[in-house]
Amino acid sequence: MAWNTNLRWRLPITCLILQVIMVVLFGVFVRYDVQADASWWLEKKRKNISSDLENEFYYRYPSFQDVHAMVFVGFGFLMTFLQRYGFSAVGFNFLLAAFGIQWALLMQGWFQKFEDGIIVLGVENIIEADFCVASTCVAFGAVLGKISPVQLLIMTFFQVTLFSVNEFILLNLIEAKDAGGSMTIHTFGAYFGLTVTWILYRKNLEQSKQRQSSVYHSDLFAMIGTLFLWIYWPSFNSAISFHGDAQHRAVLNTYLSLAASVLSTVAVSSVIHKKGRLDMVHIQNATLAGGVGVGTAAEMMITPYGALIVGFCCGTFSTLGFAYLSPFLESRLRIQDTCGIHNLHGIPGIIGSIVGAVTAAYSSPDVYGLPGIVHSSGFGGYKTDWTKKMQGRSQIFGLLLSLAMALVGGIIVGLILKLPFWGQAADENCFEDSVYWEIHEEANTVYIPEDLARKHPTSMITSVPLVPSPSMIPPVPPTPPASLATPAPSASFVH
Amino acid sequence: MAWNTNLRWRLPITCLILQVIMVVLFGVFVRYDVQADASWWLEKKRKNISSDLENEFYYRYPSFQDVHAMVFVGFGFLMTFLQRYGFSAVGFNFLLAAFGIQWALLMQGWFQKFEDGIIVLGVENIIEADFCVASTCVAFGAVLGKISPVQLLIMTFFQVTLFSVNEFILLNLIEAKDAGGSMTIHTFGAYFGLTVTWILYRKNLEQSKQRQSSVYHSDLFAMIGTLFLWIYWPSFNSAISFHGDAQHRAVLNTYLSLAASVLSTVAVSSVIHKKGRLDMVHIQNATLAGGVGVGTAAEMMITPYGALIVGFCCGTFSTLGFAYLSPFLESRLRIQDTCGIHNLHGIPGIIGSIVGAVTAAYSSPDVYGLPGIVHSSGFGGYKTDWTKKMQGRSQIFGLLLSLAMALVGGIIVGLILKLPFWGQAADENCFEDSVYWEIHEEANTVYIPEDLARKHPTSMITSVPLVPSPSMIPPVPPTPPASLATPAPSASFVH
Amino acid sequence: MAWNTNLRWRLPITCLILQVIMVVLFGVFVRYDVQADASWWLEKKRKNISSDLENEFYYRYPSFQDVHAMVFVGFGFLMTFLQRYGFSAVGFNFLLAAFGIQWALLMQGWFQKFEDGIIVLGVENIIEADFCVASTCVAFGAVLGKISPVQLLIMTFFQVTLFSVNEFILLNLIEAKDAGGSMTIHTFGAYFGLTVTWILYRKNLEQSKQRQSSVYHSDLFAMIGTLFLWIYWPSFNSAISFHGDAQHRAVLNTYLSLAASVLSTVAVSSVIHKKGRLDMVHIQNATLAGGVGVGTAAEMMITPYGALIVGFCCGTFSTLGFAYLSPFLESRLRIQDTCGIHNLHGIPGIIGSIVGAVTAAYSSPDVYGLPGIVHSSGFGGYKTDWTKKMQGRSQIFGLLLSLAMALVGGIIVGLILKLPFWGQAADENCFEDSVYWEIHEEANTVYIPEDLARKHPTSMITSVPLVPSPSMIPPVPPTPPASLATPAPSASFVH
Repeated sequence: MAWNTNLRWRLPITCLILQVIMVVLFGVFVRYDVQADASWWLEKKRKNISSDLENEFYYRYPSFQDVHAMVFVGFGFLMTFLQRYGFSAVGFNFLLAAFGIQWALLMQGWFQKFEDGIIVLGVENIIEADFCVASTCVAFGAVLGKISPVQLLIMTFFQVTLFSVNEFILLNLIEAKDAGGSMTIHTFGAYFGLTVTWILYRKNLEQSKQRQSSVYHSDLFAMIGTLFLWIYWPSFNSAISFHGDAQHRAVLNTYLSLAASVLSTVAVSSVIHKKGRLDMVHIQNATLAGGVGVGTAAEMMITPYGALIVGFCCGTFSTLGFAYLSPFLESRLRIQDTCGIHNLHGIPGIIGSIVGAVTAAYSSPDVYGLPGIVHSSGFGGYKTDWTKKMQGRSQIFGLLLSLAMALVGGIIVGLILKLPFWGQAADENCFEDSVYWEIHEEANTVYIPEDLARKHPTSMITSVPLVPSPSMIPPVPPTPPASLATPAPSASFVH
Repeated sequence: MAWNTNLRWRLPITCLILQVIMVVLFGVFVRYDVQADASWWLEKKRKNISSDLENEFYYRYPSFQDVHAMVFVGFGFLMTFLQRYGFSAVGFNFLLAAFGIQWALLMQGWFQKFEDGIIVLGVENIIEADFCVASTCVAFGAVLGKISPVQLLIMTFFQVTLFSVNEFILLNLIEAKDAGGSMTIHTFGAYFGLTVTWILYRKNLEQSKQRQSSVYHSDLFAMIGTLFLWIYWPSFNSAISFHGDAQHRAVLNTYLSLAASVLSTVAVSSVIHKKGRLDMVHIQNATLAGGVGVGTAAEMMITPYGALIVGFCCGTFSTLGFAYLSPFLESRLRIQDTCGIHNLHGIPGIIGSIVGAVTAAYSSPDVYGLPGIVHSSGFGGYKTDWTKKMQGRSQIFGLLLSLAMALVGGIIVGLILKLPFWGQAADENCFEDSVYWEIHEEANTVYIPEDLARKHPTSMITSVPLVPSPSMIPPVPPTPPASLATPAPSASFVH
Repeated sequence: MAWNTNLRWRLPITCLILQVIMVVLFGVFVRYDVQADASWWLEKKRKNISSDLENEFYYRYPSFQDVHAMVFVGFGFLMTFLQRYGFSAVGFNFLLAAFGIQWALLMQGWFQKFEDGIIVLGVENIIEADFCVASTCVAFGAVLGKISPVQLLIMTFFQVTLFSVNEFILLNLIEAKDAGGSMTIHTFGAYFGLTVTWILYRKNLEQSKQRQSSVYHSDLFAMIGTLFLWIYWPSFNSAISFHGDAQHRAVLNTYLSLAASVLSTVAVSSVIHKKGRLDMVHIQNATLAGGVGVGTAAEMMITPYGALIVGFCCGTFSTLGFAYLSPFLESRLRIQDTCGIHNLHGIPGIIGSIVGAVTAAYSSPDVYGLPGIVHSSGFGGYKTDWTKKMQGRSQIFGLLLSLAMALVGGIIVGLILKLPFWGQAADENCFEDSVYWEIHEEANTVYIPEDLARKHPTSMITSVPLVPSPSMIPPVPPTPPASLATPAPSASFVH
């Protein structure tokens, strides 16, 4: 099937309409929180606050910046592993996140920061908007290479909406805890994305299979993403925890869990290869599973060794998933999951949700102290009858709800995206930047060593005419460089 | 014209002299601020400060680190987009910034931190030194690929000097506000750099045109720069704002403005291409225009939707500038602006200055509260008669002064740099690392898939003798890889 | 010699055993510090702490994140400069650091954070664990490309153990100061690594010499490492300093020292090349020497110009070391130092240790104030008789001890690693990722400019059979692309 991929009007108009709507809604609804408002001096006076440091900004901003780096640098570069889709990976991630954070500020604002008809905007909002968009970046991983930027913006619009509803029900109605978002971000994001890609199943995707792998340098670019996600994940899981010990503990647990998942990933990656070689895909992804796995429980008293165990298990299951589950999902269930988000966010997200539920259910006043458990679980007040068992049940209910929302929402959004006029690429042109990007010619320069260092440029550009359909593409067998084909003249040239 | 590009003595001596001067001047003038001095314990006692957290360090350091990342990683990698100028982009940016921050500490110190014959050094100084150097990095973008490192050091020396004078007049004499530096950093830096490149106009630059474009991976390296600039820009605009609400608000406004400029950049980039394809140059640059555009007004009460509007406009005008204004500037006004800094820093800088002036002029006690406006605008004391209209006028005057300083300074510095003995490259050798860098030979290795993974190296290195002048370079047509040179076997192999 | 490099069982089992030991020991010994524990609310009450900000977390966490970035992104990418060892550089660094931090938490915990049979875990521990691992990353640089991941894990295990012993003796028994780790991290790490590589000397390493150099893009990846190390080094040297002025001062000194070492590196790199060209190896490494050089003295009152002088000297000696000492060490002393860690960490580490000793010996109450010197040097209490001369002597003793530990430990560990069953690569297969990594085939795609942008893939993959020994590799001369050999037909081919 050949769709029209010229986005000249569709993409600009989509961007324009969305951005104008944002401006109008921000104009009507969004104002600075008192901590970011010129009236902060008054607030300080009124509440007898002696130091500007008590402004929420100083508690949260360093964590925010790390989360921001994860969303834009981390997710963006993680997806550059494809040999010919780097521009789109990092560029479309940039686009969807830049739109998504605006829409998330509104949606989450209406649900959670609405005071007297106004959304009050402070540093917490922008952290939570980044969180929400992280779940969109997760879903993007499943459809990477197969949908157009217009489809991405539409998916982001709906996913942010659903995320905010789901989050509101979880955190405010059933009062589940989910500091690092194992349920709301990872489980929801992963199964939403998987459902969408299931609906968008492409039977003939093997026509662009040759581009669905990495090359040497694209794998290194992806490692930039991996490492920035890995190092800043402790900030992610602690960014909106309670001040003091909760933030502190969330960092420690995440740090430990991530460390353990690196070792189990390496172990499993090596043992499943017949020569014991490591696979970059595993190192790039499964090493992060530990961060997902302690998402819900990071701020809880899971103990340091508990965090290690969680990380170890998540790394193991995630790597096994890449090796055995993903091929199965694609061949049997027709789920084409480009980045393997089921292994990095789906499985560890569910593990993390269950760990959180169990930890909550067995949290004990012996550990927390009574005021501690009241404080950290928000019991007390109207919740005097609330028990830790009820908390555990509420966590499990939160997980099930996230899954349900993801499935139902994913089906609906998938069907919308299946419409033929969004500029999606044909099966044989998937995973290819040049469909949506102006690609400059590649000058394959030759370098002259030593003193003769001024370059003699030898651009290698062909003008092979456009090959419109896969049937016209000749089957390209592995070809050696010509120098090997005709060794004599080239060798003689050198001397 | 062929200049001598052997810098063996010129570059080391320039570095040495500058560094020795720095050591001597630091020895004479620079001492630790009391907050960084061993006498801090005494200061705490004297001022009855109960917590070490009240040390300015804890308010500013997280923002500083982000700014530092922007200057060295952000600007450095942003300029690696050229196919054969990555070493110089990142390396020379490193060199000029490392020298510039030292000289800026002295210049800004004499003007603004001079107490009893001593420059007092604290965390604010190093933030402002990084700011000052950011304006040099901006100017570097205009002359990228065309000047030698010796010229760069000289340009940096003069530009830092002029920057400090300009900043002193703006902030201390006419008391303009410019937290994020729309005027002092971006407008000044851009028009200074443009004036220098205008003076250094190279008629025959098309001789190295083939190297003035990007290749696939160089564009990805540049995106590292873009994203680190983008994510940390909120820290940039808030780093030296007043504690509390002003820092908090500056972050929010910058966050929003940047998000909006991504959408308008994508929209415009797509609509101006006949097939609707995006251009990496726009994504790499114009998405940042929103940060420049709220530079002056970031800490003001421009409202969240105001920030969105500013970002939207800046992204739009910046992208249009890349598409239509840059070619015009080059062909008609002989301004060869390698990175398009006029579009990223010039236009948005002017927009930002005007936005700041208007916001200041219309700031109202209804919004700020009277003590709020006194506090945030620094009215009161001897400035009791000062009005917001006067503030607006002073902002506009600041913009005009920055432009004037940039033009006059740029002409003088340009004429100095035009002297023929600074080691600049010939027109046909511009945008080429091997002029100033020892380039290792490129081993064009062949990878053997699957089990046969031990590599069979096939270095492709030519020993073409040095081609001293362009007239001697044979007109090299675009040539296919060797496999195509002996078409019969390879071609037959393909079909 | 041909070893078996199939790690299928050895690597997984090593990882598994180590990780299980970690879980058990953490289970027995490690608990949250009171500041990260649910009982923090009680502690606040007991100690009458009014604000959560007094939790150590808020003092240290921003610095921690920078240190974390240095260890994983900085060191990881710094070592990607080799053309065919990027996966291993960044991947093995990831593995060793992820294991090392866990083991360091235990070892350092037993020595320094042991209370009532329990290691108390807080933000300081994870900073110090990262510090400890940094010394392992340093040592990794010496053996890069020559040892297997199993060997790396064993080396890490022993090095972390020795590091912790050495650190305990230095900081707690002889009470030396070493905030930024010139002695404990850099000197120890460098000479340990050098001793190991000396024991593991490979006579026939020139068989893989062709892979021991960089290519254009690998040098740019390495610059990512360099720049993140450079910008965050101020956080490294200040991360565990005393609150307030000491942290503040350590940042300023490191900032200045690093800036100066950039200029001296450029100067020396240029002057020693006959055409005055810069060498990327120097820029990547010696620019960082300034950070090592003020490691010990960073928090002391060395004055701003003192910091500049230290940085200047370190940059100079480091660059000279790369140019003249490394070849000598390799040819005469049989020390094969892949990354030149002797120049980046060894020499500057010793300089830094001496600078620290001298600064301590001449620290004066005129400068610190008496309570200042008592506070910052920890005098007073049982140390009333302690004098600054004694402090100086204790610093020198610390340096000598670090060297001794490194040499003795390095010999023992080297001999262990010399055993033939750890999966090390043969001499002709060093510096090659495909020994330990599954490498995807490289598609050498040809780009079609302008409108014909859909790609015509021309994969250049050879099926050359596995070449088992170097003698079987045909001597492949540097070959030019065939287009140069037969220019006419290629031009005609292009049309």
